Amino acid sequence: MNPQAMFLQQLEQAVPYVTVEPEYLEILRHPKEVLELSLPVRLDGGGVKVFKAWRSHHNNALGPYKGGVRYHAEVSRDEVVALSSWMTIKCAIAGLPYGGGKGGISVDIRELSRNELETLSRAYAFGLARFTGTDYDIPAPDVYTNPQIMSWFLDTYEKVKGWSESSAYTGKPPVLGGSLGRSDATGKGGVFILREGLAKLGLLGKKDLKVGIQGYGNAGTRAHRFVEDDLGLTVVAVSDSGAALYNPKGLPYREVSKHKNNTRSLKGFQGAESSSPIFSSDLTWIF
Amino acid sequence: MNPQAMFLQQLEQAVPYVTVEPEYLEILRHPKEVLELSLPVRLDGGGVKVFKAWRSHHNNALGPYKGGVRYHAEVSRDEVVALSSWMTIKCAIAGLPYGGGKGGISVDIRELSRNELETLSRAYAFGLARFTGTDYDIPAPDVYTNPQIMSWFLDTYEKVKGWSESSAYTGKPPVLGGSLGRSDATGKGGVFILREGLAKLGLLGKKDLKVGIQGYGNAGTRAHRFVEDDLGLTVVAVSDSGAALYNPKGLPYREVSKHKNNTRSLKGFQGAESSSPIFSSDLTWIF
Amino acid sequence: MNPQAMFLQQLEQAVPYVTVEPEYLEILRHPKEVLELSLPVRLDGGGVKVFKAWRSHHNNALGPYKGGVRYHAEVSRDEVVALSSWMTIKCAIAGLPYGGGKGGISVDIRELSRNELETLSRAYAFGLARFTGTDYDIPAPDVYTNPQIMSWFLDTYEKVKGWSESSAYTGKPPVLGGSLGRSDATGKGGVFILREGLAKLGLLGKKDLKVGIQGYGNAGTRAHRFVEDDLGLTVVAVSDSGAALYNPKGLPYREVSKHKNNTRSLKGFQGAESSSPIFSSDLTWIF
Amino acid sequence: MNPQAMFLQQLEQAVPYVTVEPEYLEILRHPKEVLELSLPVRLDGGGVKVFKAWRSHHNNALGPYKGGVRYHAEVSRDEVVALSSWMTIKCAIAGLPYGGGKGGISVDIRELSRNELETLSRAYAFGLARFTGTDYDIPAPDVYTNPQIMSWFLDTYEKVKGWSESSAYTGKPPVLGGSLGRSDATGKGGVFILREGLAKLGLLGKKDLKVGIQGYGNAGTRAHRFVEDDLGLTVVAVSDSGAALYNPKGLPYREVSKHKNNTRSLKGFQGAESSSPIFSSDLTWIF
Amino acid sequence: MNPQAMFLQQLEQAVPYVTVEPEYLEILRHPKEVLELSLPVRLDGGGVKVFKAWRSHHNNALGPYKGGVRYHAEVSRDEVVALSSWMTIKCAIAGLPYGGGKGGISVDIRELSRNELETLSRAYAFGLARFTGTDYDIPAPDVYTNPQIMSWFLDTYEKVKGWSESSAYTGKPPVLGGSLGRSDATGKGGVFILREGLAKLGLLGKKDLKVGIQGYGNAGTRAHRFVEDDLGLTVVAVSDSGAALYNPKGLPYREVSKHKNNTRSLKGFQGAESSSPIFSSDLTWIF
Amino acid sequence: MNPQAMFLQQLEQAVPYVTVEPEYLEILRHPKEVLELSLPVRLDGGGVKVFKAWRSHHNNALGPYKGGVRYHAEVSRDEVVALSSWMTIKCAIAGLPYGGGKGGISVDIRELSRNELETLSRAYAFGLARFTGTDYDIPAPDVYTNPQIMSWFLDTYEKVKGWSESSAYTGKPPVLGGSLGRSDATGKGGVFILREGLAKLGLLGKKDLKVGIQGYGNAGTRAHRFVEDDLGLTVVAVSDSGAALYNPKGLPYREVSKHKNNTRSLKGFQGAESSSPIFSSDLTWIF
Repeated sequence: MNPQAMFLQQLEQAVPYVTVEPEYLEILRHPKEVLELSLPVRLDGGGVKVFKAWRSHHNNALGPYKGGVRYHAEVSRDEVVALSSWMTIKCAIAGLPYGGGKGGISVDIRELSRNELETLSRAYAFGLARFTGTDYDIPAPDVYTNPQIMSWFLDTYEKVKGWSESSAYTGKPPVLGGSLGRSDATGKGGVFILREGLAKLGLLGKKDLKVGIQGYGNAGTRAHRFVEDDLGLTVVAVSDSGAALYNPKGLPYREVSKHKNNTRSLKGFQGAESSSPIFSSDLTWIF
Repeated sequence: MNPQAMFLQQLEQAVPYVTVEPEYLEILRHPKEVLELSLPVRLDGGGVKVFKAWRSHHNNALGPYKGGVRYHAEVSRDEVVALSSWMTIKCAIAGLPYGGGKGGISVDIRELSRNELETLSRAYAFGLARFTGTDYDIPAPDVYTNPQIMSWFLDTYEKVKGWSESSAYTGKPPVLGGSLGRSDATGKGGVFILREGLAKLGLLGKKDLKVGIQGYGNAGTRAHRFVEDDLGLTVVAVSDSGAALYNPKGLPYREVSKHKNNTRSLKGFQGAESSSPIFSSDLTWIF
Repeated sequence: MNPQAMFLQQLEQAVPYVTVEPEYLEILRHPKEVLELSLPVRLDGGGVKVFKAWRSHHNNALGPYKGGVRYHAEVSRDEVVALSSWMTIKCAIAGLPYGGGKGGISVDIRELSRNELETLSRAYAFGLARFTGTDYDIPAPDVYTNPQIMSWFLDTYEKVKGWSESSAYTGKPPVLGGSLGRSDATGKGGVFILREGLAKLGLLGKKDLKVGIQGYGNAGTRAHRFVEDDLGLTVVAVSDSGAALYNPKGLPYREVSKHKNNTRSLKGFQGAESSSPIFSSDLTWIF
Repeated sequence: MNPQAMFLQQLEQAVPYVTVEPEYLEILRHPKEVLELSLPVRLDGGGVKVFKAWRSHHNNALGPYKGGVRYHAEVSRDEVVALSSWMTIKCAIAGLPYGGGKGGISVDIRELSRNELETLSRAYAFGLARFTGTDYDIPAPDVYTNPQIMSWFLDTYEKVKGWSESSAYTGKPPVLGGSLGRSDATGKGGVFILREGLAKLGLLGKKDLKVGIQGYGNAGTRAHRFVEDDLGLTVVAVSDSGAALYNPKGLPYREVSKHKNNTRSLKGFQGAESSSPIFSSDLTWIF
Repeated sequence: MNPQAMFLQQLEQAVPYVTVEPEYLEILRHPKEVLELSLPVRLDGGGVKVFKAWRSHHNNALGPYKGGVRYHAEVSRDEVVALSSWMTIKCAIAGLPYGGGKGGISVDIRELSRNELETLSRAYAFGLARFTGTDYDIPAPDVYTNPQIMSWFLDTYEKVKGWSESSAYTGKPPVLGGSLGRSDATGKGGVFILREGLAKLGLLGKKDLKVGIQGYGNAGTRAHRFVEDDLGLTVVAVSDSGAALYNPKGLPYREVSKHKNNTRSLKGFQGAESSSPIFSSDLTWIF
Repeated sequence: MNPQAMFLQQLEQAVPYVTVEPEYLEILRHPKEVLELSLPVRLDGGGVKVFKAWRSHHNNALGPYKGGVRYHAEVSRDEVVALSSWMTIKCAIAGLPYGGGKGGISVDIRELSRNELETLSRAYAFGLARFTGTDYDIPAPDVYTNPQIMSWFLDTYEKVKGWSESSAYTGKPPVLGGSLGRSDATGKGGVFILREGLAKLGLLGKKDLKVGIQGYGNAGTRAHRFVEDDLGLTVVAVSDSGAALYNPKGLPYREVSKHKNNTRSLKGFQGAESSSPIFSSDLTWIF
């Protein structure tokens, strides 16, 4: 299903539960502005390849646009528009003084050298320079955009502007002003929500609960750790794109994550029943 | 056929005739940046309607982007991208220090009141403010954007900037700094080309040439006048979306245009054979 | 008495108590800059009415200008100049890093529709745009300028600038970044001063003190509440522009304010002797 | 009579002769913005004196504000407002792409040293910096503001901006980009109008016409020269604030102006009957 | 030894202890940009003297340039370059988000009147305006630049920019936003380091330690106080450019500093053996 | 001799011939501001080399700074300062509204690849961005900076600014807005001066004059052509760094220049006596 269509459907489903004037609802159905860029990159082996990129600004009534930039071959205008729309809603619900933005480049980063990746990243930040900034739009990392890429974005932005403004991009390395807890944040945020949900259901503190984690990338592995360390619960099932593991007696974080780190996959882990993977995006809870 | 596909086809056809490095050719295949806007307009009768609008910047190697803004229900992202691509080529061939731009709003202006039209036009110029200006992009009128609309554009732009900059938009009324000959320009330009073509063919000055004009709007009517007055030739056939007229003895400009002005159509003109219209965009020559 | 004359008189009275070089005193006698605006508003019923408005910047040696904007038919250049002069002194005495500013529009808001009020407010903020901002002048609400009007000001300012800058105006609704305690602030500030004054006089904690409150608008009603709740004292007299109430046994906040809310006046309150009003601006203490 | 009242009266008198919508007429009755400045000047002998100054922007629909700056003890807010209103009308009638502006400082320049005059002039240009510029408001000289003062204005403006922009002020010395014919312009313009008026009356070329000139400052003396040199007419009467001269046989320009230059007055000129002066502002024709 | 040569030598000595790519090391050998200014000052007695001044920006990878401005006859391009290079290293080691900058004017301030000093200081800040600011370069006081000079710098900067920005310069007086502890900071910082060093050596708390202080200006006198008050240790030797004092029983801070304040020198202090001075820059520890 | 010392000497020699207040003379002895840059270039073969570069702004009283940029291993701070000083004088004497500027990079361009040269050139223009521009400083080509390099400068400048501003650099190729006659200008200017000098001496038109040209690069070869074509004179001697040629019957332009183009030297030309070269900078006249 087209992601923007999905957003619109959810918006309609939400309407009965809130008071919103029809004209504001109509405005929420459309991104305020979408910038599409064609980014030429001179390849190491000669020649130029042009990449399509976007940045969608859905709504900034509550503050500067905020949202990640993803690098993926399947990224499309409709995807970044939908993701920016969800960011508007997420920031508003969380009471944050930010609006909804999102960006992306249609690129398979495995096909680029480090030099080409830097050139592409700097071209994107340069093309967005008059469209971003601490007071207008603060991009963040997302799929396949790591602290190194955020540094290239920020450095390019600062060069164009002619001043230091580390607040213009989040997700930088801490030495450039990035937040210390950022790499744990998604996994830890998931566990916070799990904890609050358990509390609401009166289950918090019950030690015989069993937890399953679907997705075992950055967020899933850290959630595994916090579920064990902070909530004291037992994870009995985990799954990534290579395999699904099950052990009713528990899958200890340190063992499973060590295997994953070494082999880049859950496949072949010894202390569990293994089956074909149950695919999902990173970090979904199963009880 | 998709207009951008048509541009790309023409580009390939032109390659054998020029010397261009493949990497620059690849860059010319894509617009450098395209801004898509969603413009909410509060309707006179209440409620809000959101209009889609675009501004495409194809290439500015030779100078600020230049190109019209069209208001039409059928305007699409692909159309403005293609038109901006052609503007790059047109400015370069004509030796003008401008690049290729184009914009449009998907709107049927007959459905809007004057007040709504002003609101929409101002919203467009406001949304484009950081994307336009004398040194960056100078929009012009195009389909259904007249001097009044250009004035709203300019006034909005100047208000946002906080200074007078009448050079930021062309096609304003002369009292606001618009060019005196602008309303004649398209028709007159066509007749200049006709004159040069005739000269090249050795036909200039031959009084027995007969001219047909397809399209009878702003450009066609003025071309009719200049063909008679400046070239001294006889127009024997004209056509608009209502009728096609033919009179081998000639269709005098003053009579035909008077009828058109009074009835908004060529239909019903007495001094000629009339048949069903031969549709075409404004101003095509037939000999 | 002309308010600016009053300020100048007070300034002379203060001189003997401080050390100030004559040349700085002379500078304090004049506002550094005063901007006068004529704001045309298209009326709902047709036609245009032009309103006079001002913003006075008295002195910014200590930081950005700070001060409210009042909407009142009697507002004049001299009044806003005097009020901005007092703001300079007030900020300096309080040790705040701000200078003295003040603004106003000569308008009786009861004569405007909501639509006309929005148009007028936006015209004012637009006309002031190059004269205000977080680092230059931060307007606040004052007589008849509520959070809705401050939102229009801020939204207009941000649109002109092209970025989010919620710190450019104070008194916004909390959802747009306004301070949570703002509506209580004036009344609570008055009670803080009362408390400190009582402490200095050795009267703090004496429960048999009787309090009178002159003025019973936003500040006076809240002062009534804090006097009861925070200081534990009894209010025996209150007055607004409709009536003055007296009951030696006390006028309970919840009863009096309920009557005021329901009837928009103190007149007709049952549990007290009533007499003709003792007019005063909002919130004056009587013991 | 208050000058702004005079302007409003003239505006009403003009209405029957033009087509103007009432709402635009109402807008023309008010200056769009007026900036009032208090300019402290450290005196050579110690101490500070604060001067009142203004710049009025009446209307800029046709282009940047344009108008002089006058230094005179009698300058008031109402005078500069009225003069800026007339500038709007004058530019519009002359078909110039400018709006109406005017400024002034309430100062008797005879009481200032050259150093104090420079300080005051720079303070004025500095205070106006965000209110002037080639694209917003281009001040010119007027009563008692000569090329030296315009240079101080321009230099101060350029220093604040950080770039060269000699077009921001007119009336500079030619070496700084001033127009070559400027010092002759007012007198020559008067003679152009006289010539056109004579032509319209069928009197042009009649050598027995006798001319009187009231006012004998910069404009009057040059008018005297052009009347003789360009129109070949005889001036029989001249008047300044010191004396009125009459000689039915003619008052030769070179003799009269030499006397004026040497004595700063017409008083005491030998070749004419002399009487008490007929005061008037500079350059009024009498026939 | 040339200070920049000294920096380069230290850089080479540090290389074996860190991991740094040769290309970044090469970049660290050179200041990114150095601005040299010639500042004309009109002297009180007539005539103009031109002073040479510099601001060196060594590296801003970690944030805005930061570093003092010194006024000294011996200041040279090489000195400010070297000092700015050390600032880069110091900020990086201390984990501060700042880069390395430094400035200076070649001037003996004893030869200038207060008026000339103000003119020179304002000329320097004006010349640097596009080179400094909260987000680019934040100058601080250094040799012979006190809070008054920092105020002139800041005021000039704010006037050029047209807004309040007290964060653009540090070392202002507290009333203009300066830090409260600044005058104690250098001496106190030295004592912090002494305390940490003693702790590392296991000597902290041993009361029989004897302290010598070389240099007795702003930093040395305050260090004397904190050594006594905060560490409870005895200072037995102090030295300034006038004399060196020694008393094995202790040199009490209050007595020594009183003598220094009264006589501007340590020379002639009664309660100690006195010898010829041991020159050093301010604040060196001797144990 | 140090070039700045040479300029100062010339300045003193000129003083007796002009009226200049001593304080302005003192100001002319110093460049107003000099920016020194360290430009790191990543070499094709790996590693980074840092180049020293300068831009000197001597005086801008008459308009934006103007002057070339030279690429030469011997370029130094003192050389660019001296050259910028001469530019101030040259522009003033020629009555041009420009000030004096000059820049340079210490580089032997023969040691750089085209890619490294582009990187270096762009780094220079980027480092100068806030120091140049149509209204502040307009660099031009000079020794070893050709239209390609000027294009890199301009493109970098425009990218940083975010708009088209072809007037920011002169010496671009005509397709980017460069002047058509630029490559002939230096040689032609020399011949104009020769012509005027001859006229003043009463020698213009005498066909038996014999001309010698020292220097035979861009300027010298073209001067040769214009001397023959425009003045009709005979060149009997030419010299470059390879050889000096002499033929009392004349050295025809087309033959000599053809040899020079083919062999990059005058050496080996057949139709003349040849001797060892008389070195001089390009284009010196000998009669």
